Amino acid sequence: MKSFTKYLEFNTTKKIDFVLITDKIQKCIFDSGVKEGIVLVNPMHITVAVIVNDNESGLIEDYKRVLERLVPYKDNYAHNVGEDNAAAHIWRQLMGHQVTMAITNGCLDLGPWEQIFYCEFEGIRKKRVLVKIIGE
Amino acid sequence: MKSFTKYLEFNTTKKIDFVLITDKIQKCIFDSGVKEGIVLVNPMHITVAVIVNDNESGLIEDYKRVLERLVPYKDNYAHNVGEDNAAAHIWRQLMGHQVTMAITNGCLDLGPWEQIFYCEFEGIRKKRVLVKIIGE
Amino acid sequence: MKSFTKYLEFNTTKKIDFVLITDKIQKCIFDSGVKEGIVLVNPMHITVAVIVNDNESGLIEDYKRVLERLVPYKDNYAHNVGEDNAAAHIWRQLMGHQVTMAITNGCLDLGPWEQIFYCEFEGIRKKRVLVKIIGE
Repeated sequence: MKSFTKYLEFNTTKKIDFVLITDKIQKCIFDSGVKEGIVLVNPMHITVAVIVNDNESGLIEDYKRVLERLVPYKDNYAHNVGEDNAAAHIWRQLMGHQVTMAITNGCLDLGPWEQIFYCEFEGIRKKRVLVKIIGE
Repeated sequence: MKSFTKYLEFNTTKKIDFVLITDKIQKCIFDSGVKEGIVLVNPMHITVAVIVNDNESGLIEDYKRVLERLVPYKDNYAHNVGEDNAAAHIWRQLMGHQVTMAITNGCLDLGPWEQIFYCEFEGIRKKRVLVKIIGE
Repeated sequence: MKSFTKYLEFNTTKKIDFVLITDKIQKCIFDSGVKEGIVLVNPMHITVAVIVNDNESGLIEDYKRVLERLVPYKDNYAHNVGEDNAAAHIWRQLMGHQVTMAITNGCLDLGPWEQIFYCEFEGIRKKRVLVKIIGE
């Protein structure tokens, strides 16, 4: 069994931002040499989600509007004593915090529109995403 | 290490539908010959979720009603230019898009009521689910 | 490849409760002897979520309030014939039902604030969480 670990760094220019990372994950798979296995993509910060969905700007606007309507960013939260990020913690749970994807023939095994996104809900600072690959 | 890859096909007769797939996943595990490991069940289409929950028809009605109340299917979405599936994309994030399950002694290692469902939010067309098994 | 399986038992004293389990998962990793791999933490009961987020009591109060506002525990659910746990089933989907974490150098590979929680939405009875480790 082979394993491979990589820490990707992000520092978005916007507080709430969606960054396409499919190519970065594919690059990790190439570097790992794994042909058959899985890749776990796990944000190491708890106001970030990693998701798989469509690369379409309108949809990204829709996510933001729905999340803001369901869990307003500025509201009365018990967590917000000296911080203002309670909603960001909750958004990342609603969106699904991490993904595991299959590696087949040395590549991400994706459907026609599957794209991997780093979803930042409290940005403008440096954060890491852990990429862990196991396989052979 | 062994690995096994299978693409399951679905084409629901309803636009929104919940299909029990536990037996299909168990069949993949038998076919893989893996006795100890994990199975990733990942829909390759981005308006589908794969979840684990109860096989009870009332609960499935409750999911639909709650999702429709939180994120109405027909509403004003930026994504819906030439399509009408923005809510389907968002529902799949709220429900949790994929699952990874354990394989123990050659079987799905399930609790008493755990069942795996294919949750279609934009059906009546052919879609695929990727089953990736690794183990030994 | 090594594999390791452990069933952790929980019986919360409150119907809705959040239990920090990071140390229990780390103990499983030590016991497994796996140095590089992944650990799947999957509740075997379908009104429970296992999540990764902040160990902060205010945030846990915020989760409860947001979940109750979005999907009230006592409401009119089709599932609630002889039971009252429909909302608990739905909460566990919204929060994300399971996590997979990386193992690096024999330890959980965690960011600075990542903590693993058992989130009970229908407690005061015995339930199990499956910990499955694969690696080498």
